[in-house]
Amino acid sequence: MAPGRTNFSSHEFPMASGASPFSYRTNSAYQRRVVRATKQLMHAVVMEKLQVENGSIFQITDMGCSIGPNTFISVKNIVESVELKFKLMNTQEKHIQVLFNDHAYNDFNTLFASLPSDKSYYAHAAIGSFYDRVFPDKSIHIVNCSYGLHFLSRVPNNVENRESVAWNKGKVYYSHSKEEVISEYSKQYEKDMECFLNARAQEVVPGGLVFITVPARPNGTPHSKVIYNMLADILGSCFLHLVKQGDIEEEEVDSFNIPVYITSPIEVEEAIKRNGSFSIEKLEILSKETSPINGLTAKDASVHIRAITEGLIEEKFGTKILDKLFQLHEQKLEDAYLDLISGEAISLFIALKRKTNL
Amino acid sequence: MAPGRTNFSSHEFPMASGASPFSYRTNSAYQRRVVRATKQLMHAVVMEKLQVENGSIFQITDMGCSIGPNTFISVKNIVESVELKFKLMNTQEKHIQVLFNDHAYNDFNTLFASLPSDKSYYAHAAIGSFYDRVFPDKSIHIVNCSYGLHFLSRVPNNVENRESVAWNKGKVYYSHSKEEVISEYSKQYEKDMECFLNARAQEVVPGGLVFITVPARPNGTPHSKVIYNMLADILGSCFLHLVKQGDIEEEEVDSFNIPVYITSPIEVEEAIKRNGSFSIEKLEILSKETSPINGLTAKDASVHIRAITEGLIEEKFGTKILDKLFQLHEQKLEDAYLDLISGEAISLFIALKRKTNL
Repeated sequence: MAPGRTNFSSHEFPMASGASPFSYRTNSAYQRRVVRATKQLMHAVVMEKLQVENGSIFQITDMGCSIGPNTFISVKNIVESVELKFKLMNTQEKHIQVLFNDHAYNDFNTLFASLPSDKSYYAHAAIGSFYDRVFPDKSIHIVNCSYGLHFLSRVPNNVENRESVAWNKGKVYYSHSKEEVISEYSKQYEKDMECFLNARAQEVVPGGLVFITVPARPNGTPHSKVIYNMLADILGSCFLHLVKQGDIEEEEVDSFNIPVYITSPIEVEEAIKRNGSFSIEKLEILSKETSPINGLTAKDASVHIRAITEGLIEEKFGTKILDKLFQLHEQKLEDAYLDLISGEAISLFIALKRKTNL
Repeated sequence: MAPGRTNFSSHEFPMASGASPFSYRTNSAYQRRVVRATKQLMHAVVMEKLQVENGSIFQITDMGCSIGPNTFISVKNIVESVELKFKLMNTQEKHIQVLFNDHAYNDFNTLFASLPSDKSYYAHAAIGSFYDRVFPDKSIHIVNCSYGLHFLSRVPNNVENRESVAWNKGKVYYSHSKEEVISEYSKQYEKDMECFLNARAQEVVPGGLVFITVPARPNGTPHSKVIYNMLADILGSCFLHLVKQGDIEEEEVDSFNIPVYITSPIEVEEAIKRNGSFSIEKLEILSKETSPINGLTAKDASVHIRAITEGLIEEKFGTKILDKLFQLHEQKLEDAYLDLISGEAISLFIALKRKTNL
């Protein structure tokens, strides 16, 4: 009955808050493009698949909402579709409540300060990791999770353990690492997806929907050829550069790993089928024009990666290396630009429906 | 259906945030004593009066929660009573959701960072002024509003209007002012209470409870003999002092008023009866040992008033006068201490039940 203690591990991702020049807020243009691309898809699923039950309250949650503005765009798109559906179905009057979810250390102050003034819903925040229970049983009608599920709940087991064959020595990420490291990352992703799906299976009403958008790796493409991973690998080489210059210790790098995993369509599908509580209503690969470096300069791309990783790096290394690290990163991205644009990058949109016969 | 636009007027009270040495957080010891004093009262009302209906979700809101820790104490007290009631009544399993409410400019980051780790409820935040609608129809089971309803929604009409007989020239508060000023304050309080009760009447389920705790003036005591008011009046004299010293302009003081009103038992009772949607289950005057200056030094009392008014003063006068103003305030409180302890101060606890036959 009780949601129990939520452990906020040090491996959660506090996005750079609104005040920082490198903030997530100003550097989430790429995710915004993806959000727009998913608008039509979500609309179609709501119109065709959403089962509207009795009851006067309709609850939508955006999980891993961060600080806006993307969450407001996603939510607006969903609310508009839902309102249209209610109108066409001539349902009883319903109150729409939107629950903006993120962990307790998210900058909710910035989020709330920019709530749209013309919103047609009750705005709430729900605190907690989406890998845990956040809501009561059968209380949510639509879940949206956009660009959240590539963040693992923690650094995978053993990759920071010097005694393990999966020790990720000299690296901060898995995609250029040995098979054992990749395997630990992929196992952690499987566990996390099961936690996410299992929690949502209890929270979502039968017939309710879950929308997931994630950056992804095309089936069959090596991890090292995925643009997101290439950006992170280049960041890893910058850490080694700082070790050589004596700015940080090698041991510090050996015990630092970025808990992000880029999944593939087949892995997502397997996770959903393994869980068994949801039917897959749509699984679409978003076109390559949403590639994360499309139209971006090296500086833009570096700023983007900084927005995502800054909190983690700061926690481990303090603030002193940040500027130097990302100057180096920008420079190396510049040099690697031709390589980078030959890499692969897709985003996946998945629409799930909570099975009713369970 | 839509909650519509919430206007966050400049007259809302952004409590000094967690970072300030004069923060509400560290200076709310007095309210904490009141919160403790109300524990038994709330427990008795929950056990005797709460009507528990079917449904698996039980929603409690703390309105005007500020940044803690008092809200966590109030909520814990209510949740424990409710859980005991469920147990004794052998109800179906229920999920308790707590909705921490305050306006969008409250420091929710500080609140969320200190959420109790052992809480047995789902923690959400609900954004908006409690003088407006914040929740869907019939969705809330228990409302708590502790030390919130003495803050008016705005500065009363005409008290800043030079053409009006109610112009509050040379003062920043009503309790030592002419009858016309007092009347405008009291009318604004009536309007605000009606807004609060009307919104809650729609949101609370029939049989649900509303707990209100407010600082108050004993029936028949003049406004100028109430300790809370005396503290504010002394602050007013400090503004005039700064005018004489040339630190601020007289016109600035003439157009600044503190939107706080200290009600009396009879006024609260009238407001509730006028509204008509709630029965009064309890109306208790809390004993004088909860007096706001009991056990406080002049410095403590001044810091307390600063925590409440700092945001408003800063908005009008900037930060530059704050330290000087409150140094003066502390000194004048010291001088007036014998007067002050002869003043009156009570707190009121009111338990309402949403009528079922409407």
